[in-house]
Amino acid sequence: MMTIKIVLAGPRGRMGREALQLIHNTPHFQLVGAIDRVNGGKMISEVEGLPNIDAKIYTDIEECMQKEMPDVLVDLTTPEIGRRHTKLALDYGVRPVVGTTGFTSEDLEELQQIAEDKGIGAIIAPNFAIGAVLMMKFSQMAAKYFQDVEIIELHHDQKLDAPSGTGIKTAEMIAAVRESKKQGHPEEVEHIKGARGADYDGIRLHSVRLPGLIAHQEVLFGGDGQALTIRHDSYNRASFMSGVRLAVETVMKIDLLVYGLENIME
Amino acid sequence: MMTIKIVLAGPRGRMGREALQLIHNTPHFQLVGAIDRVNGGKMISEVEGLPNIDAKIYTDIEECMQKEMPDVLVDLTTPEIGRRHTKLALDYGVRPVVGTTGFTSEDLEELQQIAEDKGIGAIIAPNFAIGAVLMMKFSQMAAKYFQDVEIIELHHDQKLDAPSGTGIKTAEMIAAVRESKKQGHPEEVEHIKGARGADYDGIRLHSVRLPGLIAHQEVLFGGDGQALTIRHDSYNRASFMSGVRLAVETVMKIDLLVYGLENIME
Amino acid sequence: MMTIKIVLAGPRGRMGREALQLIHNTPHFQLVGAIDRVNGGKMISEVEGLPNIDAKIYTDIEECMQKEMPDVLVDLTTPEIGRRHTKLALDYGVRPVVGTTGFTSEDLEELQQIAEDKGIGAIIAPNFAIGAVLMMKFSQMAAKYFQDVEIIELHHDQKLDAPSGTGIKTAEMIAAVRESKKQGHPEEVEHIKGARGADYDGIRLHSVRLPGLIAHQEVLFGGDGQALTIRHDSYNRASFMSGVRLAVETVMKIDLLVYGLENIME
Amino acid sequence: MMTIKIVLAGPRGRMGREALQLIHNTPHFQLVGAIDRVNGGKMISEVEGLPNIDAKIYTDIEECMQKEMPDVLVDLTTPEIGRRHTKLALDYGVRPVVGTTGFTSEDLEELQQIAEDKGIGAIIAPNFAIGAVLMMKFSQMAAKYFQDVEIIELHHDQKLDAPSGTGIKTAEMIAAVRESKKQGHPEEVEHIKGARGADYDGIRLHSVRLPGLIAHQEVLFGGDGQALTIRHDSYNRASFMSGVRLAVETVMKIDLLVYGLENIME
Repeated sequence: MMTIKIVLAGPRGRMGREALQLIHNTPHFQLVGAIDRVNGGKMISEVEGLPNIDAKIYTDIEECMQKEMPDVLVDLTTPEIGRRHTKLALDYGVRPVVGTTGFTSEDLEELQQIAEDKGIGAIIAPNFAIGAVLMMKFSQMAAKYFQDVEIIELHHDQKLDAPSGTGIKTAEMIAAVRESKKQGHPEEVEHIKGARGADYDGIRLHSVRLPGLIAHQEVLFGGDGQALTIRHDSYNRASFMSGVRLAVETVMKIDLLVYGLENIME
Repeated sequence: MMTIKIVLAGPRGRMGREALQLIHNTPHFQLVGAIDRVNGGKMISEVEGLPNIDAKIYTDIEECMQKEMPDVLVDLTTPEIGRRHTKLALDYGVRPVVGTTGFTSEDLEELQQIAEDKGIGAIIAPNFAIGAVLMMKFSQMAAKYFQDVEIIELHHDQKLDAPSGTGIKTAEMIAAVRESKKQGHPEEVEHIKGARGADYDGIRLHSVRLPGLIAHQEVLFGGDGQALTIRHDSYNRASFMSGVRLAVETVMKIDLLVYGLENIME
Repeated sequence: MMTIKIVLAGPRGRMGREALQLIHNTPHFQLVGAIDRVNGGKMISEVEGLPNIDAKIYTDIEECMQKEMPDVLVDLTTPEIGRRHTKLALDYGVRPVVGTTGFTSEDLEELQQIAEDKGIGAIIAPNFAIGAVLMMKFSQMAAKYFQDVEIIELHHDQKLDAPSGTGIKTAEMIAAVRESKKQGHPEEVEHIKGARGADYDGIRLHSVRLPGLIAHQEVLFGGDGQALTIRHDSYNRASFMSGVRLAVETVMKIDLLVYGLENIME
Repeated sequence: MMTIKIVLAGPRGRMGREALQLIHNTPHFQLVGAIDRVNGGKMISEVEGLPNIDAKIYTDIEECMQKEMPDVLVDLTTPEIGRRHTKLALDYGVRPVVGTTGFTSEDLEELQQIAEDKGIGAIIAPNFAIGAVLMMKFSQMAAKYFQDVEIIELHHDQKLDAPSGTGIKTAEMIAAVRESKKQGHPEEVEHIKGARGADYDGIRLHSVRLPGLIAHQEVLFGGDGQALTIRHDSYNRASFMSGVRLAVETVMKIDLLVYGLENIME
């Protein structure tokens, strides 16, 4: 396998540090530089808390592109910086793999156009957890055959939002392929308010919050005499890394922009 | 084992028919009569839909008691009839095993007094499913060590009530032994109303309704780095029969009234 | 929707009786006849235990085809009879939907050729439970991204075979798309023989047998910091009927033979 | 609540470091010293990797007892050292809470005698995970009502032993209260060897090993038309700490030796 030269933006974040390790541990990946707003000029190995990797830190992405000529930019920064980096990478003919959200349809159209003009690949993915992406993809597929579905998502009790982003995204993906349907018995009664959960286009979502839990989701389908359940358990941040690896390998083989990891998975 | 002579009230109901089979199939149980408001004078075997058992049907419970002198009355009728039957059985020195709800504290106190005076046992149990009773009992025990708990109950979509009776009863039993606690993050936000479920004394209950499902419940406890889950699946009405058998055997050995199957289980 | 005229072979079997109900209850399906080795000349409604449907029973399939000119033959008989019926149906231009196993590759090739020559569809499916078929299909898809997988199948304790047919079929489908891999730690030790389950091409299968259970299977995938689980619960025979309906509707739209329900599901 | 003065033996182990944090974070607990074979004379805060706690390290347990006069010794060392420490602590009137295995019945009898003579409490517990202990306790209780049970334990694929220690201990506790029973159909056949798992007195154990998993166990009971499942998930070492806290609080209130956390839980 040909070695892929990678620059990483955002090396000090939680995801960034995992990604440094991933690139370092993957034989056909080579980290040729990092982009950070501080520590310019230092080696990664010189920054406290970062792994002992021999690659230079740049504060200026353009200087980095010119000097290191990477194949891929892995961007794990913020939405605003991510948008700017993605465009600049494409301009330099570097294939971006971007893990931030916040791109508008206009952003995506513009970047799609540049990618096509340059004839290179680009991947933007709000979620790199392959298991979670498969759970959503399978749920969408199953919804064609099972009209009735409920979602239970379970997280630690420090989480503020209910339902979770993944829970809502799953409901959206299901709603996109099935006819809108109010589930449950037409005359069902909630003796305590909220028992039947949140309602998204007739799909019920239930948010469990308990200390000790991490991040889990079950999608339950029911039909004549049977049930189908798809569950994802995320135990730690390492769960994102196989998605990053898949994206880096895939971005080298495509010549257009893809949004969402599910669209590069068969 | 000594044979126990049993009279069954309510033989044509769903539970009643299962109980006829149970009594028939248990070697040390003997069905000596049935009480029904119709079919008086016929044999059970003569009534369409009932099993081929050679025992007489009575419309008058007192006549049945006098003629058949049973050891135990198994009553699977309605709350109103059940109350009357229980008292009459005790008056005749027959030990009642009653599967109806609707007894008030006054009823229970009065019946308790009669049972003690007569020196015979009586068991009144709103739920004969041993697995469900154990789930509730274990949940109450676990709540002493885990302050945080949520309940997910899952039923077919023909069920009208949410949460289920067993779900609420479980929450009540937990609430009785733990300090009241509002769970989840104090600043949590429901982006879609109902996501966090029903609130019973700070315990969250979630009701899932899907075609194909039968009757299921999970009680989830979370604490430092761990989770404990107790789940009961009820697949059909046969699940009640081991509880009836246990109650009939136990009622012969006690000399007071017990309310709730959990109180005859160690 | 155009009405589909259906002949059912095997009306007295367990699946057959469910299928009679399904056809009767589906507005755009019309039962025009049944094929049975007994009861020739009677109406279905005249046979004890069969539903009150006004369609004639034939012992001779050719006579039935000629007189009733159905669109579809639903065959729920035995492997031997099923093979003969399938060929005859195609000869008469009737589209077969067949739920029996036992077709050899030669059989399938020959039938495929006839279907193409006639320009009509044919569907042969050893398993009509849509949920089980999706579970297997999703498992095969997930195996491309998760190299490590174990299968737990759970059935009532009257089942003689371990692992179950569906368990083995799932392992086969996974093995077909992943590189052979011996899972678990290379130096793992079974302190009690059998703890690590059955080994199929490195995939471990575990068979649970307990009274009360019906038919359940979990496929568990593990990877960096995450797990993905796909579970199917079959509660009763009705679970097969949505698959039969899907096959009948699909066979009208295709002009070749398809083997396996998974191949008509997107 | 009265402050409990604690000495910890084994501060540098994984469990030991968690325990240092626990004692530090519990208002009515006070760490007055630590016992370690190195670092004698230093403060805990001076040892790299240990938390910033102001308590002295001793290499000689007797010197520590004499100078610090603790109420409780928490011992998280090795079986051999643990045995010696336990006896010495009792001699000095210090109540031991010991997390090591390897005590023989003779050891326990001897220590029991000393505890009684001194009139002080002692707790020896091979497993401090309250959730796991409850799972085992509930399983033993349920086995009185459900004769059929199987155990599925699931761990990361770096684990060498199958079944797990907790799996075997659970089977032992169940076997102690039920009549020996060979489960499954008498004529069941393993088409692939090992499918039906390990056999412990007729109870089947299944060991799943997958990357990503941590430490999980399910105990499944089946009976007439129902199933009861008790599951424990251990996500990290913090799961042991509530058990240590419970033991420290309880050991102050008892005046005999207790073996096994389950015996101080109601």
